[in-house]
Amino acid sequence: MTDFHGIFPYLVSPVEPLTGKIKEDVLRQLVSDLIAKGVHGLSPLGSTGEFAYLTQAQREEIVRIVVDETAGRVPVVPGVSAFSTEEAIEQAQRYEVLGVDGIVLMLQAYFALPPTAIVRYFRMVASAFHRPIVIYTNPGLLGVDITPAMINTLSEVPNIQYVKDASPNTGRLLTTMNLVEGRIKVFSASAHIPLVVLQMGGVGWMSGPACIFPEESVYLYELARSGDWNTAWDVQRRMWRANEVFQKYSLAACIKAGLQLQGYDVGPALLPQEPLPDQAIHEIRHVIDYITGIHKGSRKAWTA
Amino acid sequence: MTDFHGIFPYLVSPVEPLTGKIKEDVLRQLVSDLIAKGVHGLSPLGSTGEFAYLTQAQREEIVRIVVDETAGRVPVVPGVSAFSTEEAIEQAQRYEVLGVDGIVLMLQAYFALPPTAIVRYFRMVASAFHRPIVIYTNPGLLGVDITPAMINTLSEVPNIQYVKDASPNTGRLLTTMNLVEGRIKVFSASAHIPLVVLQMGGVGWMSGPACIFPEESVYLYELARSGDWNTAWDVQRRMWRANEVFQKYSLAACIKAGLQLQGYDVGPALLPQEPLPDQAIHEIRHVIDYITGIHKGSRKAWTA
Amino acid sequence: MTDFHGIFPYLVSPVEPLTGKIKEDVLRQLVSDLIAKGVHGLSPLGSTGEFAYLTQAQREEIVRIVVDETAGRVPVVPGVSAFSTEEAIEQAQRYEVLGVDGIVLMLQAYFALPPTAIVRYFRMVASAFHRPIVIYTNPGLLGVDITPAMINTLSEVPNIQYVKDASPNTGRLLTTMNLVEGRIKVFSASAHIPLVVLQMGGVGWMSGPACIFPEESVYLYELARSGDWNTAWDVQRRMWRANEVFQKYSLAACIKAGLQLQGYDVGPALLPQEPLPDQAIHEIRHVIDYITGIHKGSRKAWTA
Amino acid sequence: MTDFHGIFPYLVSPVEPLTGKIKEDVLRQLVSDLIAKGVHGLSPLGSTGEFAYLTQAQREEIVRIVVDETAGRVPVVPGVSAFSTEEAIEQAQRYEVLGVDGIVLMLQAYFALPPTAIVRYFRMVASAFHRPIVIYTNPGLLGVDITPAMINTLSEVPNIQYVKDASPNTGRLLTTMNLVEGRIKVFSASAHIPLVVLQMGGVGWMSGPACIFPEESVYLYELARSGDWNTAWDVQRRMWRANEVFQKYSLAACIKAGLQLQGYDVGPALLPQEPLPDQAIHEIRHVIDYITGIHKGSRKAWTA
Repeated sequence: MTDFHGIFPYLVSPVEPLTGKIKEDVLRQLVSDLIAKGVHGLSPLGSTGEFAYLTQAQREEIVRIVVDETAGRVPVVPGVSAFSTEEAIEQAQRYEVLGVDGIVLMLQAYFALPPTAIVRYFRMVASAFHRPIVIYTNPGLLGVDITPAMINTLSEVPNIQYVKDASPNTGRLLTTMNLVEGRIKVFSASAHIPLVVLQMGGVGWMSGPACIFPEESVYLYELARSGDWNTAWDVQRRMWRANEVFQKYSLAACIKAGLQLQGYDVGPALLPQEPLPDQAIHEIRHVIDYITGIHKGSRKAWTA
Repeated sequence: MTDFHGIFPYLVSPVEPLTGKIKEDVLRQLVSDLIAKGVHGLSPLGSTGEFAYLTQAQREEIVRIVVDETAGRVPVVPGVSAFSTEEAIEQAQRYEVLGVDGIVLMLQAYFALPPTAIVRYFRMVASAFHRPIVIYTNPGLLGVDITPAMINTLSEVPNIQYVKDASPNTGRLLTTMNLVEGRIKVFSASAHIPLVVLQMGGVGWMSGPACIFPEESVYLYELARSGDWNTAWDVQRRMWRANEVFQKYSLAACIKAGLQLQGYDVGPALLPQEPLPDQAIHEIRHVIDYITGIHKGSRKAWTA
Repeated sequence: MTDFHGIFPYLVSPVEPLTGKIKEDVLRQLVSDLIAKGVHGLSPLGSTGEFAYLTQAQREEIVRIVVDETAGRVPVVPGVSAFSTEEAIEQAQRYEVLGVDGIVLMLQAYFALPPTAIVRYFRMVASAFHRPIVIYTNPGLLGVDITPAMINTLSEVPNIQYVKDASPNTGRLLTTMNLVEGRIKVFSASAHIPLVVLQMGGVGWMSGPACIFPEESVYLYELARSGDWNTAWDVQRRMWRANEVFQKYSLAACIKAGLQLQGYDVGPALLPQEPLPDQAIHEIRHVIDYITGIHKGSRKAWTA
Repeated sequence: MTDFHGIFPYLVSPVEPLTGKIKEDVLRQLVSDLIAKGVHGLSPLGSTGEFAYLTQAQREEIVRIVVDETAGRVPVVPGVSAFSTEEAIEQAQRYEVLGVDGIVLMLQAYFALPPTAIVRYFRMVASAFHRPIVIYTNPGLLGVDITPAMINTLSEVPNIQYVKDASPNTGRLLTTMNLVEGRIKVFSASAHIPLVVLQMGGVGWMSGPACIFPEESVYLYELARSGDWNTAWDVQRRMWRANEVFQKYSLAACIKAGLQLQGYDVGPALLPQEPLPDQAIHEIRHVIDYITGIHKGSRKAWTA
């Protein structure tokens, strides 16, 4: 369970509006279905999981449920994110006790931090946690950038083994790969074209949209693994239409809306986020029909 | 205690490094000394108070201590800040139970929010809290902007009574004042020249540096109240040198370092922030000596 | 003619749409009227003058006309702006031959420049020109920032004597003034509240809106000179409403529209800029009526 | 000469420091050598060509020389860039008379422009020019963004046939391709990994670095054309090291320095740009040796 690769859906966080309780049944059903459809791992408490809008008690309840329902079939790798080093360590250790297989480690910045402070944060959390760590950088949402040079420095820490870079600059991934020479493996974020990252040597895709398109995402991954690049590009080109829709609106709200359309009562994005406009729901419904429609056809439908 | 005006130091948060315990003695001494030196209110848990780096338990302990030590002599107005509406309401209500006189209400943004969502957040927290609210906008640190138009909309909410705008754009304050026509009162942030804000009709200064310069800040405020603008500008022009130093480095770290130099054992900025370089300590010591040296002289020393 | 102070309107550039010819009659009338109304200087080829949209031939024709029509009654200080040092020197020397009294010197950045390169640009242009220079920094429009530290370095160059800082950060002006201690004088830009800058020790206001409100601007300046701050604030508070309108739209287009409403056939903003929407014209007409209406009343009308 | 594809080096602009004369011999030699090494087109007056630092007379001289030396062997497609529509049309028409095969059309923004204004600019220039146009968007350097939606609108203009998007967001290219469905062809910018763009269906690479690495770039392009993706990735991965160096410094300065090292006396980057530090020269020399060293080896050297 320590070799992370393939499709890791970022799980949404279904919360009851008035009580704040986690909707355990909905979350268990989603976990169970995603595993049945072939995903290679699960990542609760990412951006798509709206970690920033949850209390620590809610976060732990989610990790507990996901670990329990998964029952060791695939790795569970929740997000850990904080402004302070202490709080990140606290989160990581709680999740370790709950039985996770690794964490996706983020840093939120309030006051600007020099590179040495950023590197030290990751080092300190890594030394207080005993399983593999995926470093996640997303300057747009987290307010701090983990550069290729910092990732290279951190590649010497034994349990820092993966990176996910959601800056939309795909060239940076190649720079990182050239620097770390295999000491760190790269996951694609949805800001990138996953197939490009796989082709450059990436090991998988941590992905909000994979909640909605698990089979199609796994299919894309398998095509890449087998080196069938032409078919893979036919699939990727069409699946990208979903990204085009999601990028127009807020990602968590879109994934929740898509799952709701698929029959999972995950509820709306958490306050103060607003419900999506009707136009967005319409576009989401349309792109789900488009992509799952092709997939239900056949391999030929993708390459037609 | 509901007419907020004058000098409100943003209190730092003294935390024991290993245990995470609040240094109660140090905090009580600081509160007690600041009140003795004439400040008109106290604001724990602002940016200078490193709220983003504290657990909710630490925050509540700080509020408890400050309210207790203040004992009603001046209003206590802690910061409330969250990504989610629920968490902001939770914080506000806890602090209300602890006896605060108002709150400084902030919004942190993870996913981008439309104006209606931002306004609704402030409305919902205001309706769940029963004392005056200071809206605080700081697009640089919080990732979201509360525009003059939004403040105008919110000016109709009875307990939203003050605004503090830390965008460095002083002209926006005049735009806001023209719009709200007295329904909202304006506090200066340290990003502005406080004397300018007072002269435009502002009611006070919520200020990290006032922890270090309480008497000088009160003096500046009294000069403005009495309309002695010429002397006030002589004072402001020199006090600004402290801002020039603090703006080069991280504000919370500077205020903590300054208090440490003045004998308050508040400790360093919280991790992952780094200790200030020696050069910064040197500059802070120098500007403290410069400003307090003038003030210990006489009124003539300021205007010389 | 080398002591620049007071109100310097940024002249618009009236251009015939099809031929590209400068509308000489309109420009002469505007220059003549502004001088009659008491302005203390004239600055063609600023942002409001749409220098970026003009050919060098058009620019020189404008300088020729303004210098000729002014006939030495007030200083003429056109904008010089370029990406390359050579081109800035070329412009400055041409305008010197045409008889200008100084220049407003800008730097546009294509590739990012280190501080030493920025300082050298200003030094090189200054040494190739023999009259006073106003350094102009506007990071938002020009893509490069001239910091207080750079201005301090440049304050040793004999003919660099003024600065206009259009970053909206008013505190920076006080930092600059503290640094340069009189070696450089400060003009207000319209991004600041001009009265604040005058009160801090600024010497005047270089201003697009002063094309439309020359008498009111001069009145504000005279009030500040006489130290009548209370009346001055009453005037400033109301005149700021014009800035509130202009900041919503593109400045050059607004000033041209306002002058058109006042009977000067200056034409629309140059392509590819678009004509202002009707709503903007309506707001501009309204704020002109509001401000000129008060001014035509009496001193009492401003302070009522 | 109207089907643009393959490797188009962005030519540097060799200028004599004191006189400002174009170094005609150096430019002719570079053009001649690049064509001999197999490049598929030439693009003077791009960012690498420092168009922003040249007078219009210098620009025309450069176009004249390049067209003459090329003598129809490959298409010559110079950059046209302006703030004003009129000036862009003027440039385009002058270059058409000089015999170019197309232009790379840019828009520089001074005042912010709404989408309709941006689209109209490209339409107006296109209707005044009679050969194919490559739209170039580079929000970082030009201050304005041409979005996929705008490109889609412009795809209906007959002679707007190509786009080069230098935002570093590779996913946007796929969005654009999905939108325009072949009506517009895509060139890679150096902000992207060229091989990725070719694999997605791009037709070539307009490139500063191709001045220094013409044979290697052509080799990469030919590998992509033949569908030999594995070898192509081996080449790309190594060639990317040059981008890693160039991205640290200013692109034009790096390409000029690299050519100087290769024996072309193109001179330094134009003022106010500064000469590169020794460390940069060292890194450039090293990466040239690294890449050309492999290439001089054999196909095996790339894939080893």
